[in-house]
Amino acid sequence: MTGVDSAGSVGLVIPFVEVFEEPLTLACGRTLDRFELVLETYGVLNADASNAILICHALSGNHHAAGFHSRDERKPGWWDVAIGPGKAIDTDRFFVVSVNNLGGCHGSTGPASINPATGSPWGPDFPQIQIDDWVESQRRLAQRLGISRWAAVIGGSLGGMQALQWAVSYPDWLDHCVVLASAPRLSAQNIAFNEIARHAILSDPDWLDGHYYQNDRIPEKGLGLARMVGHLTYMSADGMSDKFGRELREGSLGSEESDAVVFQVESYLRYQGAQFSTRFDANTYMLMTRALDFFDISRDHDGDLRRALANTTASFLVLSFSSDWRFSPARSQELVDALLAEGKPVTYADIEANEGHDSFLIDVPGYLPLFTAYMARVGC
Amino acid sequence: MTGVDSAGSVGLVIPFVEVFEEPLTLACGRTLDRFELVLETYGVLNADASNAILICHALSGNHHAAGFHSRDERKPGWWDVAIGPGKAIDTDRFFVVSVNNLGGCHGSTGPASINPATGSPWGPDFPQIQIDDWVESQRRLAQRLGISRWAAVIGGSLGGMQALQWAVSYPDWLDHCVVLASAPRLSAQNIAFNEIARHAILSDPDWLDGHYYQNDRIPEKGLGLARMVGHLTYMSADGMSDKFGRELREGSLGSEESDAVVFQVESYLRYQGAQFSTRFDANTYMLMTRALDFFDISRDHDGDLRRALANTTASFLVLSFSSDWRFSPARSQELVDALLAEGKPVTYADIEANEGHDSFLIDVPGYLPLFTAYMARVGC
Repeated sequence: MTGVDSAGSVGLVIPFVEVFEEPLTLACGRTLDRFELVLETYGVLNADASNAILICHALSGNHHAAGFHSRDERKPGWWDVAIGPGKAIDTDRFFVVSVNNLGGCHGSTGPASINPATGSPWGPDFPQIQIDDWVESQRRLAQRLGISRWAAVIGGSLGGMQALQWAVSYPDWLDHCVVLASAPRLSAQNIAFNEIARHAILSDPDWLDGHYYQNDRIPEKGLGLARMVGHLTYMSADGMSDKFGRELREGSLGSEESDAVVFQVESYLRYQGAQFSTRFDANTYMLMTRALDFFDISRDHDGDLRRALANTTASFLVLSFSSDWRFSPARSQELVDALLAEGKPVTYADIEANEGHDSFLIDVPGYLPLFTAYMARVGC
Repeated sequence: MTGVDSAGSVGLVIPFVEVFEEPLTLACGRTLDRFELVLETYGVLNADASNAILICHALSGNHHAAGFHSRDERKPGWWDVAIGPGKAIDTDRFFVVSVNNLGGCHGSTGPASINPATGSPWGPDFPQIQIDDWVESQRRLAQRLGISRWAAVIGGSLGGMQALQWAVSYPDWLDHCVVLASAPRLSAQNIAFNEIARHAILSDPDWLDGHYYQNDRIPEKGLGLARMVGHLTYMSADGMSDKFGRELREGSLGSEESDAVVFQVESYLRYQGAQFSTRFDANTYMLMTRALDFFDISRDHDGDLRRALANTTASFLVLSFSSDWRFSPARSQELVDALLAEGKPVTYADIEANEGHDSFLIDVPGYLPLFTAYMARVGC
């Protein structure tokens, strides 16, 4: 049984907005005079505010991590497999905070917001947010909510990098740090895939140097193409073979039309790209991929990962997935090795899974039981 | 020493065109009333025409495989490391034929040629060529040159598929079949990457449904993007890290410009894309990638690779490269296993190399000595 009223679901959730009027100085040196964050919470904050968990979303994610916004909503939030009563992130025990990142396009202040200095949407003039800025804005949010320490900060992919940044920037602010399908920094190949995605957006004539809002245009072809590249790299070669094989959508092998879609995998990717471009903002995509590329937890320590992690006090759970080639198990092991070398408490597993980078979003065998077992220790 | 007059170079070469006035019925059922092939040859055909070698080029290749077209040419042909006096494909011993594939954009009949029925360029109306058609056209070329049997048919990547098709379609026509960095068919992931490349071209407003020639337009952004995707998949993650690391092109980490190129790898990829779009034709790119996707040597045998290879009589050399993830060693091993199961003579090696799919074009340690040793047996 799935749906709003099913067991294991947080049910109907209502996002809300917190407004911050104190200026926020960003890592790039610029200042946001004010900003808003949209968020959802699940579960109940206990009396001493010791059961709060922060969920950090990935590149294309948002604050809607669990439950349903309405009875008509077809699919629950993006991490409903992991968040809910009795689930790994058990909302019977924890107060879960899920926020749309600053610079996002789902309600938090971002490129589509009005720049008070001009009265027009920021567009590409929105400051280039870095992961430190997310941590800083989330810390203000925590204070607003009466939380001075997270029981755990949890994220996958880009979200895992935020969790890691929390552990490094504010060791006193979290007990546990959960880093899934992530990496301490991007590789040249990672950056190159993001660059191609950005280049696809930049090449779209509807991009208009990022000032498309005012012109009622959307660079949907470029954004769709960017998503196709991204989506493809989140799947594994074997997983794709299992799912699509070389199946033809129609018997048109000798087709005369050069743009005829003939393989199922093509039709699937085009659909994913087209869908995405209706629900995501191109300026945010540019900003988020750039934040990813810039991230390097060891940047302030000459690339020395051990030194970067030396001051952390959190306990770590690090999980990788065997077929994830976008953020391969080797990247997680790099992180784990540095943590162990520094004598930090760390639990690590590489989960055997065929679903590539996307595995952390899916109920792949062995993953959620392990995650649940770890989370049982949190807050005890 | 490199250059026209250096030892090991075939020196100056002059491409020439062969015209075929006999209609060619294609695998798709359509007919080309006439066609032209542009080619180069290196070395001298011996008296009994037993020393001829056919080179099959890859997706973005052409007939210019070795030597120089002029004293001013900065770089030699694309496979000069392997072709020349004393090299693996020794032009002191062999007569080497290198032809631009039908449907290409470097002088053979293709989408940019005039469609005799309309008097305008074929564009997207050019028939969808399949690998069988290349073999057929190359067989006619061989007959024209007085060759009735190749000492070896050799190719890498898409070229390796052509070599394989030769061995299957015309077992009596070749002694040796050399298949480098290739596969018996494309995977869903392979197809998906090609689909993204095609989608990039289709999304370019200058594509004009493929009829851009008559409108003095070139879909160079789309083609450039397609090439960026391709190029990225031809390199390995480790190779890219070695070459680029996370090196910034300039100290612009907090850059205000969302389209600023900051990492070296980005600048490199953009350059590769832009260069390619000046020297390659988008319709040919569509056609070649589609030919790749369609290829499946076992198609006529219900996917049974062993049965597909049962009638071959050639000796095989199959080489893969450890870091090639576009056509991984496992794909070569699949081919080798089927050949061995059928009791065919096959030499196989997986070369340890960091350069990904491109390795077959490069003098990576261990590769050319092994290739040379194998070729020493050819024609003896």
